[in-house]
Amino acid sequence: MTRLSFADLSFGDDSAPLYISAARAVEFRPGTPVLLGAGYDGTTSFRPGTRGGPDAIRRVSDGLETYSPSQHADLEDAPILDAGNLDLPFGSPKPAVDMVAAAVKEVMSLGARPLLLGGEHSLTAGAVRGALEVYPDLVVVQLDAHADLRADYLGEAFSHACAMRRCLDLLDTPDSPQGMRLLQVGIRSGTRAEFDELRESGRYTPPEGVELAERVAEFGRRPVYLTVDLDVFDPAYFPGTGTPEPGGINWREFEQLLAALSPLNLVGCDVMELAPQLDPTDISAVLAAKVVRELLLAMR
Amino acid sequence: MTRLSFADLSFGDDSAPLYISAARAVEFRPGTPVLLGAGYDGTTSFRPGTRGGPDAIRRVSDGLETYSPSQHADLEDAPILDAGNLDLPFGSPKPAVDMVAAAVKEVMSLGARPLLLGGEHSLTAGAVRGALEVYPDLVVVQLDAHADLRADYLGEAFSHACAMRRCLDLLDTPDSPQGMRLLQVGIRSGTRAEFDELRESGRYTPPEGVELAERVAEFGRRPVYLTVDLDVFDPAYFPGTGTPEPGGINWREFEQLLAALSPLNLVGCDVMELAPQLDPTDISAVLAAKVVRELLLAMR
Amino acid sequence: MTRLSFADLSFGDDSAPLYISAARAVEFRPGTPVLLGAGYDGTTSFRPGTRGGPDAIRRVSDGLETYSPSQHADLEDAPILDAGNLDLPFGSPKPAVDMVAAAVKEVMSLGARPLLLGGEHSLTAGAVRGALEVYPDLVVVQLDAHADLRADYLGEAFSHACAMRRCLDLLDTPDSPQGMRLLQVGIRSGTRAEFDELRESGRYTPPEGVELAERVAEFGRRPVYLTVDLDVFDPAYFPGTGTPEPGGINWREFEQLLAALSPLNLVGCDVMELAPQLDPTDISAVLAAKVVRELLLAMR
Amino acid sequence: MTRLSFADLSFGDDSAPLYISAARAVEFRPGTPVLLGAGYDGTTSFRPGTRGGPDAIRRVSDGLETYSPSQHADLEDAPILDAGNLDLPFGSPKPAVDMVAAAVKEVMSLGARPLLLGGEHSLTAGAVRGALEVYPDLVVVQLDAHADLRADYLGEAFSHACAMRRCLDLLDTPDSPQGMRLLQVGIRSGTRAEFDELRESGRYTPPEGVELAERVAEFGRRPVYLTVDLDVFDPAYFPGTGTPEPGGINWREFEQLLAALSPLNLVGCDVMELAPQLDPTDISAVLAAKVVRELLLAMR
Amino acid sequence: MTRLSFADLSFGDDSAPLYISAARAVEFRPGTPVLLGAGYDGTTSFRPGTRGGPDAIRRVSDGLETYSPSQHADLEDAPILDAGNLDLPFGSPKPAVDMVAAAVKEVMSLGARPLLLGGEHSLTAGAVRGALEVYPDLVVVQLDAHADLRADYLGEAFSHACAMRRCLDLLDTPDSPQGMRLLQVGIRSGTRAEFDELRESGRYTPPEGVELAERVAEFGRRPVYLTVDLDVFDPAYFPGTGTPEPGGINWREFEQLLAALSPLNLVGCDVMELAPQLDPTDISAVLAAKVVRELLLAMR
Amino acid sequence: MTRLSFADLSFGDDSAPLYISAARAVEFRPGTPVLLGAGYDGTTSFRPGTRGGPDAIRRVSDGLETYSPSQHADLEDAPILDAGNLDLPFGSPKPAVDMVAAAVKEVMSLGARPLLLGGEHSLTAGAVRGALEVYPDLVVVQLDAHADLRADYLGEAFSHACAMRRCLDLLDTPDSPQGMRLLQVGIRSGTRAEFDELRESGRYTPPEGVELAERVAEFGRRPVYLTVDLDVFDPAYFPGTGTPEPGGINWREFEQLLAALSPLNLVGCDVMELAPQLDPTDISAVLAAKVVRELLLAMR
Repeated sequence: MTRLSFADLSFGDDSAPLYISAARAVEFRPGTPVLLGAGYDGTTSFRPGTRGGPDAIRRVSDGLETYSPSQHADLEDAPILDAGNLDLPFGSPKPAVDMVAAAVKEVMSLGARPLLLGGEHSLTAGAVRGALEVYPDLVVVQLDAHADLRADYLGEAFSHACAMRRCLDLLDTPDSPQGMRLLQVGIRSGTRAEFDELRESGRYTPPEGVELAERVAEFGRRPVYLTVDLDVFDPAYFPGTGTPEPGGINWREFEQLLAALSPLNLVGCDVMELAPQLDPTDISAVLAAKVVRELLLAMR
Repeated sequence: MTRLSFADLSFGDDSAPLYISAARAVEFRPGTPVLLGAGYDGTTSFRPGTRGGPDAIRRVSDGLETYSPSQHADLEDAPILDAGNLDLPFGSPKPAVDMVAAAVKEVMSLGARPLLLGGEHSLTAGAVRGALEVYPDLVVVQLDAHADLRADYLGEAFSHACAMRRCLDLLDTPDSPQGMRLLQVGIRSGTRAEFDELRESGRYTPPEGVELAERVAEFGRRPVYLTVDLDVFDPAYFPGTGTPEPGGINWREFEQLLAALSPLNLVGCDVMELAPQLDPTDISAVLAAKVVRELLLAMR
Repeated sequence: MTRLSFADLSFGDDSAPLYISAARAVEFRPGTPVLLGAGYDGTTSFRPGTRGGPDAIRRVSDGLETYSPSQHADLEDAPILDAGNLDLPFGSPKPAVDMVAAAVKEVMSLGARPLLLGGEHSLTAGAVRGALEVYPDLVVVQLDAHADLRADYLGEAFSHACAMRRCLDLLDTPDSPQGMRLLQVGIRSGTRAEFDELRESGRYTPPEGVELAERVAEFGRRPVYLTVDLDVFDPAYFPGTGTPEPGGINWREFEQLLAALSPLNLVGCDVMELAPQLDPTDISAVLAAKVVRELLLAMR
Repeated sequence: MTRLSFADLSFGDDSAPLYISAARAVEFRPGTPVLLGAGYDGTTSFRPGTRGGPDAIRRVSDGLETYSPSQHADLEDAPILDAGNLDLPFGSPKPAVDMVAAAVKEVMSLGARPLLLGGEHSLTAGAVRGALEVYPDLVVVQLDAHADLRADYLGEAFSHACAMRRCLDLLDTPDSPQGMRLLQVGIRSGTRAEFDELRESGRYTPPEGVELAERVAEFGRRPVYLTVDLDVFDPAYFPGTGTPEPGGINWREFEQLLAALSPLNLVGCDVMELAPQLDPTDISAVLAAKVVRELLLAMR
Repeated sequence: MTRLSFADLSFGDDSAPLYISAARAVEFRPGTPVLLGAGYDGTTSFRPGTRGGPDAIRRVSDGLETYSPSQHADLEDAPILDAGNLDLPFGSPKPAVDMVAAAVKEVMSLGARPLLLGGEHSLTAGAVRGALEVYPDLVVVQLDAHADLRADYLGEAFSHACAMRRCLDLLDTPDSPQGMRLLQVGIRSGTRAEFDELRESGRYTPPEGVELAERVAEFGRRPVYLTVDLDVFDPAYFPGTGTPEPGGINWREFEQLLAALSPLNLVGCDVMELAPQLDPTDISAVLAAKVVRELLLAMR
Repeated sequence: MTRLSFADLSFGDDSAPLYISAARAVEFRPGTPVLLGAGYDGTTSFRPGTRGGPDAIRRVSDGLETYSPSQHADLEDAPILDAGNLDLPFGSPKPAVDMVAAAVKEVMSLGARPLLLGGEHSLTAGAVRGALEVYPDLVVVQLDAHADLRADYLGEAFSHACAMRRCLDLLDTPDSPQGMRLLQVGIRSGTRAEFDELRESGRYTPPEGVELAERVAEFGRRPVYLTVDLDVFDPAYFPGTGTPEPGGINWREFEQLLAALSPLNLVGCDVMELAPQLDPTDISAVLAAKVVRELLLAMR
C-alpha cells in the first residue's frame, strides 16, 4: 500500500561480485524479476548521457504507486530483487557488452528473470548472448524508433546504431532453431536499406492491430526477451534520450501494446536509452520507471 | 525588520487584511470571478515547488489572448478581479488550510466566485470547508490523476496525498444533504485500496462519455466546487508538477471535458499543483493559464 | 575591429555578398532546394530567442536519417544547398524584412527554391514580397496556431503578431490575380475580431478533412509559398517557441497534413519560430529539423 | 481585443499614463527613490532576454533583508515607490528610448530619483536625455564590462553596443557645461579603437584605488546619474546576461566601489542587462536585487 | 586509492529502524564518523528543494578523490559509515526535528560522530538537542550567511530563519555550563535587530583572522558541534540553495577557515541547505560533497 | 545512406580528407594558428558531454571582441584558420587518439600551429604523439585540476584520468632528449600516490610565483605543447565540465599565468574538457572561447 521505491529493494551484501552471487540467489524463487543497472554510453552517436539512467529510474520510482490499475496487480504481491548496478568500464564497448552477457546468463541460470536498466541499446547484444546460453530457442521482441540494423557505425561494430544487427548475428546462425527469431515493433526511422530489409524479412509489425496479435500468438510459449528502446515513445512523452524521433507512441498506446504482448513468455527484458540529464523535467525518468513497473508485473 | 520584497512597495496600504478588503469588494457585482493566489507546498511528497504557481500563471498569461474560440467568449466582456496572493505561512499545513477556508468563505459571502491558483492540492480541503459554510449542499468535482484518498501520509493528515479524504470528512457527515457529494474524474493512479473504494463508492467516472454526462445532469443547479489537479494532464503536456503520472489527458480532451461540465453551476474553482520551477520550458504554466482562462469564462 | 566569430574564419572569401553568390549558383540545377538561415527576433512579444533557430536546426540534424519512410525518398537522391545565414541586423525589423525579400528574390530568380529557417514569423512578409516579384500569381499557405492578422502590435507594424496582415497587404492589391491568395490552416488563437475575419473571409480550414483537400485541389499548379509557424504543433511536441498555445497538432497529424498538401507546386517554404534556448531538451529543434527534411523532399 | 494579462486585472484604473501619475506623486517627498521597470531587448546582439529583468528583480527581492549591514541602513526607514513597468513597444528601439526619456524627466521633475530596472543598456541614452532636461550639468558614471562606444552596430545607432556613444552625443555639446561629463569604470572589453579612445580621453578609471577617489572628489555636489551594466560583474557571479565577459568584479569589490562612490550626489540610477531566463539558478537576479537595495539606500 | 563514493559506504541491513541500530553499532569503533541523511524542507521561505540534498551529495561524491591534499589524509585510512536517510515526514517541522534529535543522540551514545546531510537548517535545532543529552557542555559553531535569530517566521517557530534562536533556547538555560556556547562565523545578512544582537552578544567573528583563532583556542577540548549552512559560500560557488546571499566565501577561504578550526574537538557536524534541483550544473552538490569529505577527515 | 547533417551540405567537396587538405594549406604562412575541433568523450568517468565542446566555442565566440586588452593584440592582425572538426568515431578511444595524432602531425608538418578544441583530455596523448614526430625535443606544459597520472582507469588505458600518464609514456623514453619534459601546473586533486609522485618528480609548480617563472625560463626556445584542461578554473567560473573540482583559479589569475608563460615557444595547444550541455548559462563556453582567443594571440 506504499509508494514504489526501487531503492528499497536493494541487496545487503556489498562485498559481492559485480553481479548476482550464489549467496543472494537463495533469497529468490524461480521466476523472480531482478533489476540490473547497466549504465554505459560510450558509443552514443548524438547526445550522451544514458549512463545515469538506472539511478534516475530508482530515484523517481518513489513518486509512483506499487499498484497498476491496468494490470490489477501490485509489486508488493511477490518478491522482486534489485541487484544494483553493474560496474561497467568506460571507453571500449566490448568489455561492457561481455559483462552484461555474463550477468544475464548468471541471473537466468538461477531461474530468475533479469530486467536490465540501461544504458545504451548496444548492451542488448550482450544480454541476448547471455540469454541464448540458457534459452537456445530464444525469441527477441524489439520496441524501438530505430531499426538499429547497421553493420557498423563509423567503424564501431558495437555502436548502439548496430544493436539489433549484433543480435541477429547471434540469432540467425546455421544451427539455430527454425522460425522467426526477431520481431521489430514500431520502427519509424532508418536508412533506405534498413527499411528495405524490414519489409523483405517480414520482421516488422506496426505497434497495434491484427498483425501484432498474430505474431504474438505464433510465438506460443517460446522464451522471449523483450527489449524496449524507450525512444519508441514520442519525444513529447520521452524527451530524455539521445536520438529523439518525432512520431512515436504515447503512454496509452504503450498500455495497449503491452496488453497485446501479455501472452508472451518473458524470460528477460530491458528498458534502454534513458538519458536523464537531457530532461530537466524528469518526466522521461518517471515514464521509464512506470514502464519498468509494468514489465516487472508482466514478467511474473 | 522584515524580509525585503519590492512587490510590497507598490501599495500604499499595507494594513489591509490578507485577502479581499471591503474597499475592494465594492468593485464587483455578484458572480464576479476572483483570482486568489495560494502558493503553499509544505507537504509535497515527491518534488516541491508549487508555491511559485500563482505568480507563474500571472506572468505567462501575457502570452495568451483574452478571447476563447471554443467558448466564443472574451475575458474583457465582464469584470474579473485579481485579489493577489494569500500570505500563507510555511511549515505546518494546518494554518495554511485555515487561511484558505477563511478567504474562500469571505469571497463567497460577498457573492463572488473564487478561483484559487495553487499551491498544492492539500489546500482544497480548506476551500471546501469555507465553501460549505456558504453553500451547505455543495458538490465537489475533482479532475485528477491521483485518488488522494489516503487517511494520512507519513503521519501528516493534511498531506496533498490526502486532499480528497479531508474533503470527504467534511462532505459525508450525518447531517449533510443526501446524494452524491464528490465526483472523481480521470483518476489513473492510487493504491489497490483506493481503487477498490473508487469502484465501490461509484464516485469515479472516466473523463469522457455517457457516464460523465449523466452525472453532470444529476447535479442540476446545485452549487459545485470544481477542483482541478493539473496532473490530470499527461506529463507531456504538463511536466511542471510534483507527481507526474504518464497516461493523462491532453488539451483537446480537456476542452471536451469542460464542455461536458458546462451545465454545472460553478460557485468556485481551483487550479492546483503547478510547480513552475520544474519546467524550464514554461509550457506547464501556459497550459495552467489557459485552464484558468477557460474556467473564468465558464464561471460567468 | 568587429566582434569575434570563429565561424567567420573558416571561409577564405569574406567579401561575398550576404546571400548566394553567382559562384555558388552554378552548382545547382533549377528546382534545387536552398536552405537560408534567417535568425531575427526583434519584435517577439512574449519570449525572445528565435535568432538561434537556424543553427540549432543544423546542429541537431545530425541525429536524423536522410531517408523519409513516409515519402519513400532520400535527401541524398538529389543535391540540396545550404546557403548559410543571412547577416540580419538587430533592432528595427524593417531592414531585416528587406534583406529577406532580396535574398528570396535572388534565389528564386536563379530557379531555385528557398527554404527559410527562422527566425520570427514577421520575416515571412519579406519572403512573400520577394517571391511575388518572381511569381506574381503566388498563393500563400499558412500553418499556424495564431491568426497573425493584427494591423499593428504596440505600434509596430512589422511585429510577428502582424505577419499575415503584412502578407495580405501585398497579396490583395487591386491588380492582383483573382482567386484565393491565402489559406490559413490550424489557427486556434486570436482576438474575436481575427476569428470573425477568418470565418467571413473563408480563408480558414481545419488541418484535416475534405475542406482542406478541396482547397488544395483548387490551387492546381499555381506557385505556392508554404509558411510553417512551428507553434502550429502542440507545446508538448514543440515547447521551444515564444508563444506556445495548447491544443495543437502532433507529428502524425503533421504527416497527414503534409500528404494532403503534396499536390501543391511549392516554390518556397519557411519554418519559423523555433527558439532553441527555451527548450533544454532540444526536442523542439529535432522536430523542426524533421519538418525541414520533409519539406526539402516535398519541394523536389 | 488585447492579449491576456492577469496582472492587468488587479488595478481598477487602467486609464492612468504609462508612468507615475500625479495622483501617485503626492505620496512621496522630494528625493524619494522610484523604481521604474524598463524591459526592452530589441537590439541585444548576442543572447536576448533582458525584457524579463524588472519582474525577476521584484520576484527574488523577497529572499533578501531590507537591512544593509555595510551601509547600516534599512529600506524601511524611509518611503520608496515602485512605479511598475513602462509599457515599452518591441521592434524599433527609438520609441522605447523616447518613452524612457519622458518617464525619467517626469519623475525627476517631481523631485524624485528614478532607479531604472533594465532592460538593455541602450535605454540609458533615453534616461540621460530625460535627466539632462532637469539637470543640465549632469555627470554620468558608468560601471560596465564593455566600452559601448561604437558609433553604430550593424547599422543600428541605438544598439546596446552604442549606449555610451549615444550618451556622449548628448553630454558633449558645444554649449554643455565644462569639465568631465562621463566616467567609465571597470571596462575590460572593447575594440582597439575603443580602448585607444578610453586611454586618450581620460574617461577611464579602474574600479578601485586612488584614481577613482580623486575623480569622485572632483565631481563635488554636481548631479550624477549612475548607470550599472551588471556585466561589470564576473560571469561567475552574474551569469544571466547577454554578453558575459570573464574577468569582472565580485560582490565584495562592488561594495568597496560603492563606498568609494558614496560622496556622489546621485539623482538617478539604472541597473541594466539582467536576462533572467539565461540563468536557471536565479543568482543573477538575486545579485541584481541586492545591487538595487544598495543603490536605493545610497540615493537617500 | 579509488574515487570517492559515499554510496559505497552504506549499510547492509535494510530491516533496521530509521536510524542506527545496535546491530550496526558493533561495526564501528568509538569516534567513527557516521553520515546521516536528513532531507526536509517544509519551512523553507524562499525557494524549496533541500530534501534532495543528501542523495545529491552521495551521487556526485563519485567524482571526487578520497584523498585530501590540504589535510594530507585519505578517507580510506579509517572506517566511515553511511547510515542512509532518516525517513522524515513532510508537513509540520516538529516531528522532523524530534526524529533528528533522537537519531543524533543514538549515534553519539554509541560513541560515534554524526555528520548530518541536510535538509534545511531548522533541523540543526534537533541535532543540538540530541547532542546536549550526551554532551551537556556542548559548544556550537555556526558557519552561515544568515544570523537565523528570528523568534519565529510567519508564525512558525521551527522555520529555518529561526534555526540558531532555537539552539540558543537550549544552550542558554539557567543551569547550563558557563561560558560562550555559540560562535557565529561569516554572517552577512540579517535584520537590524539581529545585527545589533550579534554585536552586543560578542557571538560573531569574521571568517578569518586573529579573533577567530582566539575563540577557537578558548574552547579547548570542549565538545563542539559544527553546523555549516552552505550559503556561507558565495552564490557563485554555491548557487544551489534557497536563499543565496552575494558576498560569501570561496573554497580557498573555506580551507583556511577549516584549518583555523582544526584544534576543535568536533563531536558532530552538519552540512545543510543544499537544494540540488536549483543548480543544473551540479557544482553546488560537488562543493557540498567536498565539504563533507573535509569534515569527515577533520572529525577523526 | 548516412545520418542527416545539414552542416555537410554547405561544402561542395566531401571527398576531402578528415583534416587540412593541401588545397587549403597554401592559404597559410608558417606559424599560422589552426583551430581543430576534437569532440570525443567516450572515456569520461563522471559526467559526459565534451563532444559538443568545439562547436559551442565557435558559437559563443560571436559575443567576444577580437581585440585583447591584456595582450594589446587583435585576431584580425594576422590570419588564423579554422579547419573544422575531426570526424572522430565513438566507442573505443584508441582510433580517436590515433586520428588526433595524425592530424596534429600533418598540421605541424605544414609549419602551422594547431590549437585543439576538446573534447576530453585523453586525446592529448594523441596530440603529443603527433607533435613528437615533428618536434622530438618537445616539452609539455599542463594546466589542470587533476594529476591524470593513473596507469589505467577501470581497465581503460586511454581514459581521461590517464591523460598525462600516456604522455609520459611517450616523453620519458630511454632515447628521449634530457631534461624536464612535463610541467604540471595548478594540480589540486589526485590520489595519494599521484601527489607523492608530483612531489618527488619535481614536475609540479603552483600556478603563480617565482618557481613557475624559473621553470619557464629553463625551457628557453624549446618547442612547447601547452595543454589546458579547463577544469583548472574553479567551478564557479567554469561549471560546464565533467569533473568539477572546487578551489581553482579565476580569470584574472589565468591572465597572470598566461603572462608568466609568454616567453615559451608554443608550437601547439589544446583547450579541453568543455562540456557545454552541463552549463545552461553558457558562461563556461564563453570562458573557453576567451581562453582560445588569448592562446591564438600567444601562439603568434
